[in-house]
Parts: sequence; structure tokens; C-alpha cells
Amino acid sequence: MALTRIGLAGLAVMGQNLALNIAEKGFPISVYNRTTSKVDETVQRAKAEGNLPVYGFHDPASFVKSIQKPRVVIMLVKAGAPVDQTIATLAAHLEQGDCIIDGGNEWYENTERREKAMEERGLLYLGMGVSGGEEGARNGPSLMPGGSFEAYKYVEDIVLKVAAQVPDSGPCVTYIGKGGSGNFVKMVHNGIEYGDMQLISEAYDVLKSVGKLTNSELHQVFSEWNKGELLSFLIEITADIFGIKDEHGDGYLVDKVLDKTGMKGTGKWTVQQAAELSVAAPTIEASLDSRFLSGLKDERVEASKIFQGDYYSTGSPVDKAQLVEDVRQALYASKICSYAQGMNIIKKAYDRNPGLASLLVDPEFAQEIMDRQAAWRRVVCLAINNGVSTPGMSASLAYFDSYRRDRLPANLVQAQRDYFGAHTYERVDMPGSFHTEWFKIARNISNN
Amino acid sequence: MALTRIGLAGLAVMGQNLALNIAEKGFPISVYNRTTSKVDETVQRAKAEGNLPVYGFHDPASFVKSIQKPRVVIMLVKAGAPVDQTIATLAAHLEQGDCIIDGGNEWYENTERREKAMEERGLLYLGMGVSGGEEGARNGPSLMPGGSFEAYKYVEDIVLKVAAQVPDSGPCVTYIGKGGSGNFVKMVHNGIEYGDMQLISEAYDVLKSVGKLTNSELHQVFSEWNKGELLSFLIEITADIFGIKDEHGDGYLVDKVLDKTGMKGTGKWTVQQAAELSVAAPTIEASLDSRFLSGLKDERVEASKIFQGDYYSTGSPVDKAQLVEDVRQALYASKICSYAQGMNIIKKAYDRNPGLASLLVDPEFAQEIMDRQAAWRRVVCLAINNGVSTPGMSASLAYFDSYRRDRLPANLVQAQRDYFGAHTYERVDMPGSFHTEWFKIARNISNN
Repeated sequence: MALTRIGLAGLAVMGQNLALNIAEKGFPISVYNRTTSKVDETVQRAKAEGNLPVYGFHDPASFVKSIQKPRVVIMLVKAGAPVDQTIATLAAHLEQGDCIIDGGNEWYENTERREKAMEERGLLYLGMGVSGGEEGARNGPSLMPGGSFEAYKYVEDIVLKVAAQVPDSGPCVTYIGKGGSGNFVKMVHNGIEYGDMQLISEAYDVLKSVGKLTNSELHQVFSEWNKGELLSFLIEITADIFGIKDEHGDGYLVDKVLDKTGMKGTGKWTVQQAAELSVAAPTIEASLDSRFLSGLKDERVEASKIFQGDYYSTGSPVDKAQLVEDVRQALYASKICSYAQGMNIIKKAYDRNPGLASLLVDPEFAQEIMDRQAAWRRVVCLAINNGVSTPGMSASLAYFDSYRRDRLPANLVQAQRDYFGAHTYERVDMPGSFHTEWFKIARNISNN
Repeated sequence: MALTRIGLAGLAVMGQNLALNIAEKGFPISVYNRTTSKVDETVQRAKAEGNLPVYGFHDPASFVKSIQKPRVVIMLVKAGAPVDQTIATLAAHLEQGDCIIDGGNEWYENTERREKAMEERGLLYLGMGVSGGEEGARNGPSLMPGGSFEAYKYVEDIVLKVAAQVPDSGPCVTYIGKGGSGNFVKMVHNGIEYGDMQLISEAYDVLKSVGKLTNSELHQVFSEWNKGELLSFLIEITADIFGIKDEHGDGYLVDKVLDKTGMKGTGKWTVQQAAELSVAAPTIEASLDSRFLSGLKDERVEASKIFQGDYYSTGSPVDKAQLVEDVRQALYASKICSYAQGMNIIKKAYDRNPGLASLLVDPEFAQEIMDRQAAWRRVVCLAINNGVSTPGMSASLAYFDSYRRDRLPANLVQAQRDYFGAHTYERVDMPGSFHTEWFKIARNISNN
């Protein structure tokens, strides 16, 4: 048998789909999984989906030997210990100059640790974020490879073809940088996605709870939105979701889904890293907090009984068409703020100064926000007055209003810090560091 | 010379003041500092402030030997490496059963590491948060000791007298628990304080920017507030601050203070720990983010030029008295939410179930929030419509509105997660874990 071009280990759906995608692009691929039934399943799918050149192996030794040198193996296994185990299994058979690529959502410091350990054994290592879910893996993911540039060069021809092909801008892949940068960027990308999903859910909430839109109307609204500036995978699938009926009963499936959101760690990491890097990321934080609060279903049900009653104004009747347009604009403006936060985390982590302090001040985005801020403020206040929370949209708005403010009330906070902790302060009118005996002055206590 | 009751190492202002406080309460104390001029300074202050029994030492050996056994030494040095250095210096002279207490804002895991290392040498260790700043250290701090209970017992008589004495509830100190719990609680306490300071600065901002109150009026308003339910150290010092004139020029000092807030890490740690423990802490996060944004002074000045102009409605003229009362209520309600978040972090970290899911559902707090929510919503919307950000108040409000909601739009987020990542979902009407082929159904793709 001829040697294959590349190998893939870890054949859950993501791994299977990425293997099929690679094979379909003309690269013969070897596949391996510890539970061998998954190997056979993948090979069968390869046959069914067009006789794709996928070769299955039930043991790691023959799997590795089937790949041409320098060998490249992509792992798609759970982050953490399973990655270390898979590396140990593969490395036992790999040779000098071979390369392992981790395609999972791994903590970037783990990737850096592994890259070093691999280097000592003469092996190359890449941490490559893969975005787009199962469908993306099969038909065109966004790829974020980071680590050994030499290793990237081995696979560049493959990833350029396997990645999503975007009209005008080409394949959705670029070499991110050294170390764990590929994982880091994927992590922030996921944090931004948390923001998008939260903002969309708030748009849904306002339209449904205040505007009283039906699922059928929501399906139409989101389908319409997906034709304009909000065009995106998440808006598209949201439109789809509102169109799907419940197979177990009456009505739409979305209404039967429990309002409890799971998570896998990248959102949390993004929030923790933002804090570590002193970058404000309130929209992403609000998204993470909303997931935490969604998990407290029983507490919320209890609290809703305590805080029920006619405690908020429902205001005047809502003009549906106007509301839909306002919410669309609020969602778009909020998104820009969330993206700006994510980009700032990446810039700060990699000390990049692209000549633009923030996405917000890019002339095009700035104008878009200006044009939308009246609608944005209307939506957030409408939600507040209806007792509906829009934590993401209001966090974005507060972020914008803080960022565009030449003078914040932070002078008071710094004065307080100097008062109780002698932390000193700067002045607006002269250089230097100052301390005032606020207490003594306020109490007329002499210093002698 | 008779042996002293206790020792204190690290004589910056906090250390000096705590030593004087301890001596004043009748406990002879030995003091030591690496820079020996601080030792002499402390001894001089002890003389000046009432011939207090403070004994200075210029070398660690005689310092340690001057203390009665089992010896207790409180350290008040910078968190991190300086603590390790001071421990090494002291431990060289301490004997079996002696005890070291770290009074700094140390990361709780460092305290746990040190406690273990001390235990191996037969020494006891406490991490004791000290709150109240310089004035508190001198006249009555809040103390949060955690670690060895045996060590706590050595110093209980001292800390009970040294701590702030609160009418009705007694000395402001209690044994917190094992390990780094004293530091952990102090960390969260600081996070809550970040929240309080931010919320107060927002109240200031709305009153000043929207209500056009002068510093003299603000001084009166905060003085008045400090007589009611908002009574607190931070409100008191805020009132003081607005009363102080600038000694370097015309007007009030607060207007000359640069709007850039420093920080030392405990707020960041609180936010990171909240995320780690899956606890929503949006108000504390907003406070941290506001400090980060305050630091971007130059960027903000630039952005203010781009986003200036008549872009927000100033609305109808404001009734000052009504605004002051609304802001007072909004501040109080926002504070409850911030405290609830902080308490939840502590509960979660120590797996404590005090029979109350959240402060918010405590009958008294619940009623107070109910009574204030109309004003709260008015203030946040007024700020939004005036382009003034109230990130803390609006985060608190969104937190409240999320927590008291039996049904959140999290069902959509979970449906999205199942759509693109097969993460499954639960249903409202039957148990189990479900997955739907959303894409195939939406596109009418058969599964065969």
C-alpha cells in the first residue's frame, strides 16, 4: 500500500468529519481511534460519501507507519489528560521530524508545555483551533494553527484547501504565531462567540417577551436579518431553530428546550485571561455570567415567585416593526463592542499594536455605532422598563459609553483609594504623584 | 527586659499602625523592619502617641528572642516574594510551636503552600486579612484570620481587643476557617469593595453629569446619605472628599484628581475565582473593567472626539431632589446585588449552604429591592439616555432581572449549542438528554 499524506487520531464526529474533509480535498488520510469501532465507522462513511481515500487502522503502530515522512498526525480528542495520553501513544512510534497537531480547544499553556516536551524528542508540535462545529469540520472549518512554523509549512497545502473558502478573502486559515497562540486565538474566538450567542438570545427575549413575536415571526425576522449586515452562521442557525417543530408534541421545539446552558471552559478562560491582561471584556463576562445564572434554574423559579407582581411598567404598546428594527440595530452595535473586547485581549496578549486603539474607533465601525445608538438605547431601556434583562447589550452599551468618555468618575475612586490606603493619585493639571491627608483635613486635625 | 506578648515585622504605615493599636490595647509588642529607620520611627510614634509598650529591634534574632513563647509574629509586608523572604528570615530564629501570621492581601493558595511548609518545620501559620486601611489598622480594623486554629487561639485575646468594636455585634473578627480561607474572604471582601466604590462613583457621575450638582451639594448629599441605610465608611469618606479644597489652586481637589484608578490584584483575583467557581459576579466584574477603562485615558480622550456631538437625548429637565432620592435607592439596590455576588463566591468556595440561596431572597433584602426597583430602573435609563455609563448599576439590575426570571432565553443558546456542536439539551417536559439534527430538519435532509 502507498503511504498516506497525513493521519488523524480521535474519531468522534468532529474528527470523522475533518478526516473526510481532508480526504475529499485529495489528501489520502490514515485514521485511528482507541475504540476501534469508530475506525470502521469512519471508513464506511468515507465509502458512502464518495469513496474518499480514508484508511483505517486498529493499532497505533501500523497507523503511524502508514503515513509518509515527515509524518503529521492531527489529534481530535478531549482537552487535558486525553491529549497527553494520545501524545504518549503516538510519540512511541513517531520519528525525528514528525509532527503532532492538536485540533482541540486546549488551554494554551498546555500546548506550550507539550511543544517543549516534543522538541526535546525531536518532534514538532502545533496547537490548531478548529471552528465551525461538525458541519464546519466536514465542509470547511476556520483553522487557527499556532506553534512550530516548520510544522505549519508541512501542512499548509492541506489546511489551505480544507478550510472554509471565503469569497473575496480566500481560505479561512492563517499561521497565527508561535507557542500556544493558535489555541489562545481560538479561546478568544469562543469568548466572542459566547458574546454573540448571548446577544442573540437577548434579542430573542426582547422580541418575544416585549414584542410578543411568535416563533414563526422570529423565524422570519432572523431569516431576514441574515440577508443584511448581521449575516452570520449564528443568525442563520437561529433562524433555522425557530422554524423547527417539536417531534414529541405540539408547537415548536425551542419552547421545549430547558433554559440551562452548558459550557466547556473557553468562555471562562477568556474572562480570566482578560482580567489577567487588564482588558475590559464586559460583554463576554455578561455572557458567561448568563450561562452561570441559567444553571440556577431551581433558584430562579423560587426567586420569580418572590419577585412577581406588577412591579415594572409595561409602558405603551410596542410598534412591532419599529421594535424589530431597533433590536436589529442594538444587536449589531452590541456585537461590535464584544468583538472590540476580544480583539483587545489578543492584541494585549501578543503585544500587537496595529495602529488602531480599538475596533470602536475604526471610522466605519464608529459611524455604524453612531447611526445605531439611538435604537440601542431605546432597546436597553425598553427591556429595563419591562423587567427583562439584557445583560450583554447593556454591558456593551456601558462599555461604549465609558470608552468614549474623556472624563470618567474614576477620579473619585482614586481619591477614595488615597484616602483609605494612601495609594496616591495623579493630577489633571500637573505631573507627579500626590498624596493628601484627606481625613486630617476633613476633620481639621493638625499634622503636628 | 521582660518578654513581649507578640511581634510585628514590616513597618510601613499599616504595620506601624497595627503595632501601635496592639500596644494601646495593653499587649507589649516587639517590632522589626529590614530598613531599621522604620523601627526607630515606630518606637518614636509609640512614645508620642501615649508611651505605648512598643519595643524596637534592628536584627531578626534579638527581635524573635524578645517575644514570649509560643512566639507569634505578624508580618505586614507586600504579598508574594517579600512574604517568603520575611518567613525565611523569621523562621531561622523561631522554635517549634511558634507562629507566623501574614496580615497582607495574599493569594490564598500561597498561604496554603506556606502553611504546609511551616507545618513541616513545626511552626503554625495564619493568613489574616486586615481591612480598614491605615485608619482602621490604628483604631480598629476588621480582621479575617484563617489557617491553624491552634494559632488563632494563641492570639484570640489580642485580636478581639484590637479589632473594630461594633455596637450590637461586638469585635469585628472571627476565625474564618482552615487553610487560606482568611485570605480568600478578604479577597472577596475587597472585590465587594471594588463594587461599592464603583457604584458610588456612578452615583456621583449621574448626580454631577445629569443632575448638575456642585461639589458642595454632593458633600451635603453624601453626608445626608451617611445618616441613613447607606451609612458606611466609604460613603463617609466620599462625603469628606467632596468637602476638600485644592491646596494647589482654585476649587475642589476631587476635580483635580486624574480619572485613572490603580489596583493591586484582589479585584482581579475575585473576578477570576468567581469564573472558576461558576458564580456570576457581574457588578464586581464591571468595577474591575471600569478600572481597566479608566487607565486608557489617552484612548478615551481620542474616542471622545470621535463620538462627540448631539448623539444622545438630554431629555426633560431633571428634578434634583427626585434625582438624589432615586440615585440613593438605585445605589442601595445595586449594592445588595453586589454583596449577594460576593457572598455566593464564598459560599461556593467553602461549600456552605446557609439555607439561603442568595441574599436577594432574604425577605428583608427582597422587600428593600422591591421598594427601590422603580427608582433603580429610572436612574439606569436616565443615565443611558444621557450617554453616561453606569456599568455597575446596570450590571446589578441585569443580574437581578436574570435571577428573578423563571424562564431565561438560555433555551436558545442551548439549542444553538446542540445545533452546531451536538452538545445536547434537556427538555422542560420530560427527563433525559436530547439531541436534534437541527440542520438536517431545517434543510429537509433525510437521515438515510
